[in-house]
Amino acid sequence: MLVKMRREATRDEVAAVEKKLHGLGFKTGKLVGEEITLVGVYGDISLLPVGEIAELAGVEQLIPISRAYKRAAQKGTPEQPIYQAVSIGKVVCGGDDLVFIAGPCSVESEKQIMEAARLVKDAGGQCLRGGVVKYRSSPYSGWEGLGSSDTESLKKGLALIVKAGREFGLPTVVEILDPGDVKVYEDAGVDCIQIGEPNSKNQALLNRLRTTPLPVIHKRGNSLDTEAYLLWVERIMTGGKENVILCERGIMSPNRYTRNTIDVGSVAAFRYQLSGLPVAVDASHGTGVRDLVHPTTLAGIMAGASVVLVEAHPNPLVAKSDGFQGLFPEQLRALVHAARETWRLRRKLDETYLPSVAIEKDYLARMEADKARFFRSKS
Amino acid sequence: MLVKMRREATRDEVAAVEKKLHGLGFKTGKLVGEEITLVGVYGDISLLPVGEIAELAGVEQLIPISRAYKRAAQKGTPEQPIYQAVSIGKVVCGGDDLVFIAGPCSVESEKQIMEAARLVKDAGGQCLRGGVVKYRSSPYSGWEGLGSSDTESLKKGLALIVKAGREFGLPTVVEILDPGDVKVYEDAGVDCIQIGEPNSKNQALLNRLRTTPLPVIHKRGNSLDTEAYLLWVERIMTGGKENVILCERGIMSPNRYTRNTIDVGSVAAFRYQLSGLPVAVDASHGTGVRDLVHPTTLAGIMAGASVVLVEAHPNPLVAKSDGFQGLFPEQLRALVHAARETWRLRRKLDETYLPSVAIEKDYLARMEADKARFFRSKS
Amino acid sequence: MLVKMRREATRDEVAAVEKKLHGLGFKTGKLVGEEITLVGVYGDISLLPVGEIAELAGVEQLIPISRAYKRAAQKGTPEQPIYQAVSIGKVVCGGDDLVFIAGPCSVESEKQIMEAARLVKDAGGQCLRGGVVKYRSSPYSGWEGLGSSDTESLKKGLALIVKAGREFGLPTVVEILDPGDVKVYEDAGVDCIQIGEPNSKNQALLNRLRTTPLPVIHKRGNSLDTEAYLLWVERIMTGGKENVILCERGIMSPNRYTRNTIDVGSVAAFRYQLSGLPVAVDASHGTGVRDLVHPTTLAGIMAGASVVLVEAHPNPLVAKSDGFQGLFPEQLRALVHAARETWRLRRKLDETYLPSVAIEKDYLARMEADKARFFRSKS
Amino acid sequence: MLVKMRREATRDEVAAVEKKLHGLGFKTGKLVGEEITLVGVYGDISLLPVGEIAELAGVEQLIPISRAYKRAAQKGTPEQPIYQAVSIGKVVCGGDDLVFIAGPCSVESEKQIMEAARLVKDAGGQCLRGGVVKYRSSPYSGWEGLGSSDTESLKKGLALIVKAGREFGLPTVVEILDPGDVKVYEDAGVDCIQIGEPNSKNQALLNRLRTTPLPVIHKRGNSLDTEAYLLWVERIMTGGKENVILCERGIMSPNRYTRNTIDVGSVAAFRYQLSGLPVAVDASHGTGVRDLVHPTTLAGIMAGASVVLVEAHPNPLVAKSDGFQGLFPEQLRALVHAARETWRLRRKLDETYLPSVAIEKDYLARMEADKARFFRSKS
Repeated sequence: MLVKMRREATRDEVAAVEKKLHGLGFKTGKLVGEEITLVGVYGDISLLPVGEIAELAGVEQLIPISRAYKRAAQKGTPEQPIYQAVSIGKVVCGGDDLVFIAGPCSVESEKQIMEAARLVKDAGGQCLRGGVVKYRSSPYSGWEGLGSSDTESLKKGLALIVKAGREFGLPTVVEILDPGDVKVYEDAGVDCIQIGEPNSKNQALLNRLRTTPLPVIHKRGNSLDTEAYLLWVERIMTGGKENVILCERGIMSPNRYTRNTIDVGSVAAFRYQLSGLPVAVDASHGTGVRDLVHPTTLAGIMAGASVVLVEAHPNPLVAKSDGFQGLFPEQLRALVHAARETWRLRRKLDETYLPSVAIEKDYLARMEADKARFFRSKS
Repeated sequence: MLVKMRREATRDEVAAVEKKLHGLGFKTGKLVGEEITLVGVYGDISLLPVGEIAELAGVEQLIPISRAYKRAAQKGTPEQPIYQAVSIGKVVCGGDDLVFIAGPCSVESEKQIMEAARLVKDAGGQCLRGGVVKYRSSPYSGWEGLGSSDTESLKKGLALIVKAGREFGLPTVVEILDPGDVKVYEDAGVDCIQIGEPNSKNQALLNRLRTTPLPVIHKRGNSLDTEAYLLWVERIMTGGKENVILCERGIMSPNRYTRNTIDVGSVAAFRYQLSGLPVAVDASHGTGVRDLVHPTTLAGIMAGASVVLVEAHPNPLVAKSDGFQGLFPEQLRALVHAARETWRLRRKLDETYLPSVAIEKDYLARMEADKARFFRSKS
Repeated sequence: MLVKMRREATRDEVAAVEKKLHGLGFKTGKLVGEEITLVGVYGDISLLPVGEIAELAGVEQLIPISRAYKRAAQKGTPEQPIYQAVSIGKVVCGGDDLVFIAGPCSVESEKQIMEAARLVKDAGGQCLRGGVVKYRSSPYSGWEGLGSSDTESLKKGLALIVKAGREFGLPTVVEILDPGDVKVYEDAGVDCIQIGEPNSKNQALLNRLRTTPLPVIHKRGNSLDTEAYLLWVERIMTGGKENVILCERGIMSPNRYTRNTIDVGSVAAFRYQLSGLPVAVDASHGTGVRDLVHPTTLAGIMAGASVVLVEAHPNPLVAKSDGFQGLFPEQLRALVHAARETWRLRRKLDETYLPSVAIEKDYLARMEADKARFFRSKS
Repeated sequence: MLVKMRREATRDEVAAVEKKLHGLGFKTGKLVGEEITLVGVYGDISLLPVGEIAELAGVEQLIPISRAYKRAAQKGTPEQPIYQAVSIGKVVCGGDDLVFIAGPCSVESEKQIMEAARLVKDAGGQCLRGGVVKYRSSPYSGWEGLGSSDTESLKKGLALIVKAGREFGLPTVVEILDPGDVKVYEDAGVDCIQIGEPNSKNQALLNRLRTTPLPVIHKRGNSLDTEAYLLWVERIMTGGKENVILCERGIMSPNRYTRNTIDVGSVAAFRYQLSGLPVAVDASHGTGVRDLVHPTTLAGIMAGASVVLVEAHPNPLVAKSDGFQGLFPEQLRALVHAARETWRLRRKLDETYLPSVAIEKDYLARMEADKARFFRSKS
C-alpha cells in the first residue's frame, strides 16, 4: 500500500503518518518528490485500518500495490499453481477431473426433476442443479419456483431435488435468495448452495454463508471487475471457510446478441494468476442462446474452467422458465462428451503452457549476461 | 406483445397459439409474411402467462411492444404528466418542492449523528440519512456500521438516528440489507427504507418490502437498463404498494474518473416519459468525488430529479466510511441553496418545455393539410 | 421489417404507408391492434429506403425483424453452415486448416523484422504481421512506427516487412490508418490490410477499401454490438468485395484486470449462426497480458475462430511498443502447437455439435405427434 | 511517474534505471520495500521516453501519478480555474456567454439549409452546423450526404452551408471524415471542423488536424474514459494548436432506452478539475430521443458545459437522416431560451461553488490546530 500525501502536506503531517503506521506495527519507506510524497507501507495489509490512515491530516489517497484478497488468492507460483479442491458431496471440484453440473432452470414437479436427474446421470454429469425459488426480472412472469410462496413450499421443493439427486447418486446444487433460509437448505440435505448473479454483492447473504458447512458456488456479478469480484468472494471466506467455487456466468458489455458476455480472460486469470479456487463456467446464462452453449462452454474449459454448469431439461420447449437456453437431452450428451475431451486436452497442454510462463526470467538473465545481443540496436 | 412464430411453424401451430390466447381472454391479430408469422396480443399484458405461451409448439420468441411495468409507469400524457406524491414522514416528495435528504454515510456515534442532524437542519435539508449497517466492497475495511454485529446493535444504531431526526424535525432514511430486518426498521421508527445499489435486484428483499407501510427509496443497480430497473421497482408495487421513490445513483460506463456515471438521460426519461414516481439523484455515489457533487446534483435536478440525496458530515476528513465523497458543512449549505434555485428554474422552464413535446402532432396535421410545403423536395 | 404506426395514426396514414411500399415493389401485411398498428414489409430489405418510410406521416418507428447485413451473413443452414475461404497470399483462411498469423507489434528495423520472421516461420506460423504506422493512445509515447513521418518512410517500412515475409515464405499482414495510403500498401506488395480497433467505424477508410483487391482483416470496435459490427463489415463488401476476415480482439466491459474482454460468445455466433466469413481471434490485444494469451487464444479457437493473430517478438522485453503483451519465442512455439491441437479437436467435435443444433425440430415434431407425453403436466 | 521494479530485480538493475533517468535529465527518488522497489521520476514527464525505460532490465511497470496530458489540462487552481477561449469565426466559446450551435443532421439542399439557417438565427443560435458527408451505421441507409460521392460533390455541399451561414451571420461547423479533405474544408470557408464520435481515435485524422488554423470540435468516443479522451485531444494540440473544443455526446452504458448516456460527471470534471478548454454538450446524439434533448442539454449546462450542440430542422419529420432526434423549430426556440437562463444561473452559482471547493484546506488547518475537537472520538 502506498499513502499518497497531498501536494500541500507538511513534513509534520508526513511524519505523523509514519508514526501512526509504526505504532500499528507496520514498516514504512518514503519517496519524497518535488511535488508529491509517497509513504510505502509494508506488512500484512489486510490488517491495515484503512479508514484511520485515510483520515490523517495531509493524506490524499491510498494506492494499493498488492492484492486486497488473501484467502481467495493464488497460492504457489505462476508456473506451479496450487489448486484447492472443493467437494460437493462426494464429487471433487478443482481436482484431476472436470466436474459437470447440469439440470433444469427450475424444479417443476417430482416427475420432471426425476426425469431430469436420469438425463443428467445418463449423459455423464456428476451433479444435479435446479432452482426451487427463481429470480425473475419481471414480477409478471407467473412462475417463481415451487418454493416461492413460504417456508413450507421451499422445504417441499428442496425435498424433491434432494430425493432425485439421491436416487441417481448426484449431489445437488440449489440457489438461495434469502439469508433467513440457509438453515432450511442445510436441513433439507442440499449438497451445495449457489449464489446467483443478482446476489453477488448481497452482503447480508454472503455474511450469513460464512458459517455454513456446505460448499458455495458464488456467481460473479455482471458489473464486477475480476478482482472486485474476488473481494466479494473473500467476504465469505474471512472466517476460515474454504469450500467456495468461483463462477463466470457472463458480464455486461456492448454485445447485445448474447444475453451476457462470457469473460474467458478472467477465467484464465482466475486459474493461472489470481486464485487457487475451482472455477466454474456457466454458458447457459453466459449466452442465453441454447445453440451457443456448446462452443462457449468448451471455450471456458480451454481458458481454465474445471467445473461446468449448464441448464438442461427433458424437453426445454416446455420448461417453465428460461427454456430458450436449456439444452435438449441429445445436446447435453454431446456436450458432456465434448467437455471431457476438451478438459483432457487442456490438461495436456498445461504441461507446455505452465513452464512457458516462467520464461521471462531466463530472458532477463540472458539480457544481463549479454547486453549486446539482446538490447535493441537504435535502428 | 407480439408472438413471433418460427420459420417452420405450421398453420395449425399458429392457430393453436391464437386459440390459447383467446381462451385466456386476449384478443389477437395476425401478420403473415413470406417467412415469418407474428401474432399480436391485445389486452392487459401484465396478466399474460408468458411462460405458457412461449412453450407452445412453433413459438420462437415473444417481442414486447408496450411496457411491461404498469404500476411504476407514467400516467397522464407527455405534455401533462401526472406526478405521484410520496411522503417521508411529513415531507412530500414529488410535489411542488424539491426535497433535500442529507447525512453521513454511516451513523458513527450519538454525538456524530446529532451534529450531523443539526448540520442538515441548519443547511436547509428536510430529511436525515445515515447507514447503520454498511456495504463495504472489501471485508477488510474494518467498519460495517454500528448495527452490523447483531439485532441488538442494529436496534441501538437505528435508535440513534431516529432520536437525532426527531430532535431536529427531520424524517429519517436508512438503508436495509436483510429482509429479516424489515420489522426492526419499522419498530425503530425509521421513516423511510432505502435499498442500496448492490441490492437493486435482491428479489427476497424486494418481495418482503411489498407489505411495509414505510416509503421505499429503491436505488438503480449499476448494470440495469432504464426500463429493466423499472421492472424491479414494479416488483415492490405489485401488491398495491405505491409509496416508492426512484433513485439514479450512477451506472457503469467506460468512465473511470468518477466512481459511477450519473445517467441524466434516464432521469429525464423517468420524469417526463416513463414514470410518475418521484425521482431522486444521488451524486455522492454517482461521482465519488466530493467536489463534483455540486455540479452533478444540479445537473440531475435540471434533468428532472425532484429529490436530492447527498452525503454530508460535520467533518468528512474523519468519517469512518466514504469520507472522500462527503460534503463539508459549508459545501452542503451552498448546495442546498443552489439546488433550490435550480429547481425553481426547472419548474419555470417546464412551462415552455412541456407544451413543446406535443408539437409533433401539429406538424403531422400541417403536413397532411399542405403536403407541398412540408415534404422534402428531392433536391 | 415492421413499420410501427403511432397511436394516433389515421387509417389514411396507414394506407399511405402501404401504398408507398407497394410502389417500391415490396409486399406488405398488417396487424391492427387496439392501440398500435404494425405494417410488415417483405422482400429484400437491403433495398428499402428506410429514411423515406420513416418520414411518412403517422410512422413511429421501424423495427427490424431480420438481419440488415446480407453479404457478411451466414449462408447455408445452422447444421450445415457454408464457410467462405479468404486467401492471404497463398494461405487459405476459413478452410480446413487453422491459420496462425504472428509478428511484432511494430516493425522496428530490418534486423528485428527478419529475426521475427524467422521466429514465426520456425514456430510454425503461416503469416507475418507487423505495424509500420502505430496507434498510440498517448501522443507522448515517442514511437509511432518507422513509417509515421511521411509517405517515403511508410514505403521504406512496408518494404522491410514485405522483404522479410518473402524471405521466409510468409504472406504479410499490415495495419493501415489513412485511406490515402491504400495504394502505397498495394504497391508495396503487402498481402493483407488490417483495420485496427480505433478505425472499426472509420467510414472513409472502409469505403476506400471496397475497391482494393487485397484481403482485409477488420477488427471489431470495442463498443460495437455483435451485429452492429457486421454492419460495418458489410460496408466494405457492398460493392462485391468478398475477401474479408472478421476479428474479435476484445471489447469493453466492467473487467479491468485484462486490457479488453474477449467475447467468445460472439466468436461462436459469427461462426455458427451469423456469418460465413473466417473469424480471427487476437488475444494479445484481447487480454494485454502476455501470460494470458495462450489460454484465451485456445478459448477463441474452441469457440469457433479459424485464424489466430498474436504479437510475438524475438525479445518482447526490448520491444518499442506493447512489449508487455508480446510472446517470447518459446511461448509462440508452445502456442502454435497448442492451437493446432485445439483446432483439430474443435473440428472433430463439430461432427457431433452441428447435428445437435437441429434437434429442436425433432422435438417439435414429436410434441405434435404425442402431446400427452411432452406437454407439461400442470404440477 | 513511478517505475515499479520486479520482485526479483537486483540492486544493479535499480541503479541502472536511476542512472538512465539521470542521464535523461530527470531527478529521481526511491522507495525500497521488502518486496517491491519503486523509483519515482520528477520533471516534465511528457518528455520521458516511456518505451526506453520500460525495456530496462528489472522494470515491471510504469505507474503514472500525475496527468499525461499537459496542453489540454486545467491551468489555474480548483477555486480559480483559467478558461481558454476558442473562437469559431467571430463567436467566442469558453467566454462569458453560452454558445449555441444548431442545425440539421445533414445539409440536404440549398433550400433546406437556408431555411435551417434562418431558423437557427431566429431562435437565437450563434453557429450553424450541418453534415455534408454523413456517418451511417448501415451501408444501406441510402443517404450519406450531398458530398459523399467525390471531391466535387463535397465542395458543392460545403459551399451550400457556408453560403447559408454567411447569409445569416452564423459561423459554420462541419464534420470531417477523411484526413485528405482538410484542405477542401479550409478552402471552402468552413469556420470550424468537427470530429465525430466514430473518429475520436482516428490517429491519421487527428495528426492531420494539428496544422489546420481552424478550430476543432473533438467529440469523445463512446468507449473512452474521461482522461483517455483528453489524451486523444492532446494529440491535436502537441504541435502548439490551442483552439480545440471538447464535446460530450454520450457514452456506452447498460442504458438502452436512450441512444447513449450523457456523462455529466465528466462534463463537470472537464470544466472544474481537468481542462481549461471549452466543453460542449450534444444531447441530440447523447439521447437520440427528440423530447429528451431539452432536459439533458440543460443538465449538461448545469454540470459545466459552455457550448451546446443540437440538431434542429425546419421539419425533422422529413429529414433525410436522424430526424427522430432533431428538434422542431418551436422546440429549438424554447431550448435556446432555457439554455441561456440555465447558463446565467450556473454562472451565478459558480460564485458560491468555486470558493467551496477550497474548504478542505481550512479543515485541515483547523484539525491541526485543535485535534481534540475534530478527531473522531472512538465512540
